[in-house]
Amino acid sequence: MVEPRVYDAMSKPIVGHLDPFFFEVTQAVKTGLNACFGTANEFTVAMSATGSGGMETAVANFVEPGSKFLIFANGYFCDRLTEMGKRQQANVIRIEKPWGETWTPEEAREAILREKPNTVAYVAAETSTGCWTDGKTICDAAHEVGALVIADCVTALGSMPIEFDKTGIDIAYSCSQKGMGCPPGLSPFTVSPRALKWLTEDRKSVIPTWYLDIKLLSEYFGGAKRYHHTAPITAFYALHEGLSVIADEGLEARFTRHWKNRNAFVAGIEAMGMEMHVAKGHRLWNLMTPKVPAGISDMGVRKHLMDNYGVEILGGFGELAGKVFRIGLMGVLATEKDTLFLLEKFEEALKAQGFVPKASAVEAAKAVYKAA
Amino acid sequence: MVEPRVYDAMSKPIVGHLDPFFFEVTQAVKTGLNACFGTANEFTVAMSATGSGGMETAVANFVEPGSKFLIFANGYFCDRLTEMGKRQQANVIRIEKPWGETWTPEEAREAILREKPNTVAYVAAETSTGCWTDGKTICDAAHEVGALVIADCVTALGSMPIEFDKTGIDIAYSCSQKGMGCPPGLSPFTVSPRALKWLTEDRKSVIPTWYLDIKLLSEYFGGAKRYHHTAPITAFYALHEGLSVIADEGLEARFTRHWKNRNAFVAGIEAMGMEMHVAKGHRLWNLMTPKVPAGISDMGVRKHLMDNYGVEILGGFGELAGKVFRIGLMGVLATEKDTLFLLEKFEEALKAQGFVPKASAVEAAKAVYKAA
Repeated sequence: MVEPRVYDAMSKPIVGHLDPFFFEVTQAVKTGLNACFGTANEFTVAMSATGSGGMETAVANFVEPGSKFLIFANGYFCDRLTEMGKRQQANVIRIEKPWGETWTPEEAREAILREKPNTVAYVAAETSTGCWTDGKTICDAAHEVGALVIADCVTALGSMPIEFDKTGIDIAYSCSQKGMGCPPGLSPFTVSPRALKWLTEDRKSVIPTWYLDIKLLSEYFGGAKRYHHTAPITAFYALHEGLSVIADEGLEARFTRHWKNRNAFVAGIEAMGMEMHVAKGHRLWNLMTPKVPAGISDMGVRKHLMDNYGVEILGGFGELAGKVFRIGLMGVLATEKDTLFLLEKFEEALKAQGFVPKASAVEAAKAVYKAA
Repeated sequence: MVEPRVYDAMSKPIVGHLDPFFFEVTQAVKTGLNACFGTANEFTVAMSATGSGGMETAVANFVEPGSKFLIFANGYFCDRLTEMGKRQQANVIRIEKPWGETWTPEEAREAILREKPNTVAYVAAETSTGCWTDGKTICDAAHEVGALVIADCVTALGSMPIEFDKTGIDIAYSCSQKGMGCPPGLSPFTVSPRALKWLTEDRKSVIPTWYLDIKLLSEYFGGAKRYHHTAPITAFYALHEGLSVIADEGLEARFTRHWKNRNAFVAGIEAMGMEMHVAKGHRLWNLMTPKVPAGISDMGVRKHLMDNYGVEILGGFGELAGKVFRIGLMGVLATEKDTLFLLEKFEEALKAQGFVPKASAVEAAKAVYKAA
C-alpha cells in the first residue's frame, strides 16, 4: 500500500537531473534514509533501480573476481546473492540453514574465522521466510578477518530498526516499496566509510557495471554534482514524501507500531492453535509466516480472502511451498484496525477450509492491545 | 515536459509485480513501443532502469569479453558506450568524427569490413550534438561480417521514426522521458530475433549482470512470467499512458508535427543569420543545435530566457562547450505556438547580448507554417 501523500507528490513537475532543487531533494532523501538505516554514513543514496538492483550494486562493487565471498544462506534472496557472486567470478562459499532458521553467534563467528572471506553477505530480513538475522556477530567476526559485510534489508527498512552503525554493517540496500510505503523503483543504499575506502583505495579490478558504479555515483550525488545518469525525478519525489510521512510519525513510534501489531497478530495465530514458522526472537516486525495447518489448503485460504475481501496474502515458495502463509502488515496497514480485520477474515477463511481454531484469534489479539 | 494525463496515471493503485493486470500493462507497453521503434520484435520491454541502464543492458548482454566492439564515435554518448565496452573487457575500436558530423555510407561500410567486429554500436540520436546517424549501411555491412548492431535511440524514440526492422538494427534502447513524454526511470528496449538467438545459443561467457540479464527478463515478461525483480509498477503506468497519448495522436501525425516545427525553428534561426551546427539532412527532429554567434555569450542568452520566461535551453559541452545551444522542442512542446514563442524570446535574448539579427526569426518561421 502506498501512502496517499506519496501519490500526490508524484504529480509535482519534473525538474532537470542537475537542478539545484533536485539536489535539495536528494540531500533530504539522504538524511531520511540515514535515520531509517541508523547510520551517519556520508554515502547514502537511492539507486535508480529496484531492490534487486541494489543487491547487484552491492555485489558488483564490493565482491571482486577471485575473492572469497561468504554467504549466510537461509532463504530465497541468499540464493540470488549467490548467483550474483558467481557472475562476479567470486569464490562463493555458502553457510546453510533451513529456510526460516538463523545462526547462533558461535556458528556465525566460527564460519567466518574458518573461511576468512573477503566479503560476507547475509539477509537481515528474508522476505521468503519472515526471518530476521542479527548481524552483530557476523560484522564483528568479519572485521576481525578484514572482510566487508553486506546486509540485505529489503523488507525491513522503515518498519523496524536496522542499526547499521551499531551493528557494524558496511553495505546495506533496500527498496522503496514495503517498509517505505512508496512505489517500487528505487533502492535505498548506504556504504560505510570503511567500505568506501576499500572501494577507492584497495579494490584492484575494474567494476564491470558503469550504471551501478558507486564511485561514479558519489561524484553525481556528492560534492561534484557531476552528471552520471538522468535520475528518475518522480520516484525521488515519491521517496522524499514517503520519508516525510515517516518523519512526521517519528521513527521510533513507527517501529513500535509495527512491533505491537506484529505481536498482536502472532498472539491471534497462536490462540487459534497455529504455529509461527520462525522462532520467537527472530521474527520480522512486518512480515509474518504462520505455518499452514495440516490438511488445510493454503491456496483455498488465500483465494477466500482475495475473492471475498480483496485481501492478498502470499504463500510460501521454494523450501516452504505449501508450508507457510506470508502475511505483510506494513506502512499504512500496520494498524490495530487492519490487524484485527485481517485476523478475523483469516480465521474465517481457515474455517471455510475445515480448520477448527482452538480459540478466537481476534480476542487474543485484542487482549494484547489492551495489555499494551 | 510530462503529459498531464501521464501524471494522472501515476496515481493509480499499485498491483503486484506478478499480477495479471500488470502483464496486461506490459503487453500494451510492448505493442506501443514496437510501433515507436518500428519493429515486430518479440522481445520488447521497458527495462527497470534509466536510458543509461538501457545502454548498459545492451553492452553487457551483447558485447563479450575479448570480442571486438566497434563504436562509431561522434559525441558524448559514444564515449559512454566506449567506457562500458571496456568494462566488459572488449577490444574497443573507435571510428571517430568531430562532434555533430556523421559518416558517409562508404566510410561506415569500409570501417566495418576492415575491422570485422563482433558488435557494432552507433548513436542514432546524439543528445550532445543534435546529430542523426542513419544506420542502414552500418547494419548491412555489420551483418555481412556477422556482427550485431546496437543503436542508441535515447532522444529520438517517440519524436521521429527509428525504423528498427527496415534499418536492420539488432538492439535498441531509449528512455521514458524526452520523446516519450513521461518521467525518467524506464528504458524502452528491443532486441531482434537474430540477436536473441545469438544470446541464447552463441554467447560463450557468463553475463556479469543479473539485474539486466535479457534472458532472465524474457522469462519474466515473456510466456513463463517467472519472478525476476519487482518492476516499478507506477513507472509502467506512466509509460503505458504516454504510449496511449502517442497512439491517440497517431504516430505518423506525431512525427510530422515534430518535423514541421523543427523545420520552422531552423528557418527562424537561419533567417536571423545564424547557422545550425549539424548539416541539413542529419538533424534530429526534436533537439536543435544552433551555433552560438561570434562574440555572443551563450550563458547570457540562456540566463535571459530562464530569468525572464522560465524557459530552459541548454549549452553545448565537451567539444561543443560554448559553441552551440541545445534546444529541445518535443512532446507537448512541439507546437507552432511554443515554437514561435521560443523563437521570439530567443531572438530577444540574443539581441540583449548584442546580436543583430538579419531578419525576424518569427516571420521566417510563420512563412514555413503558412507554406506547409
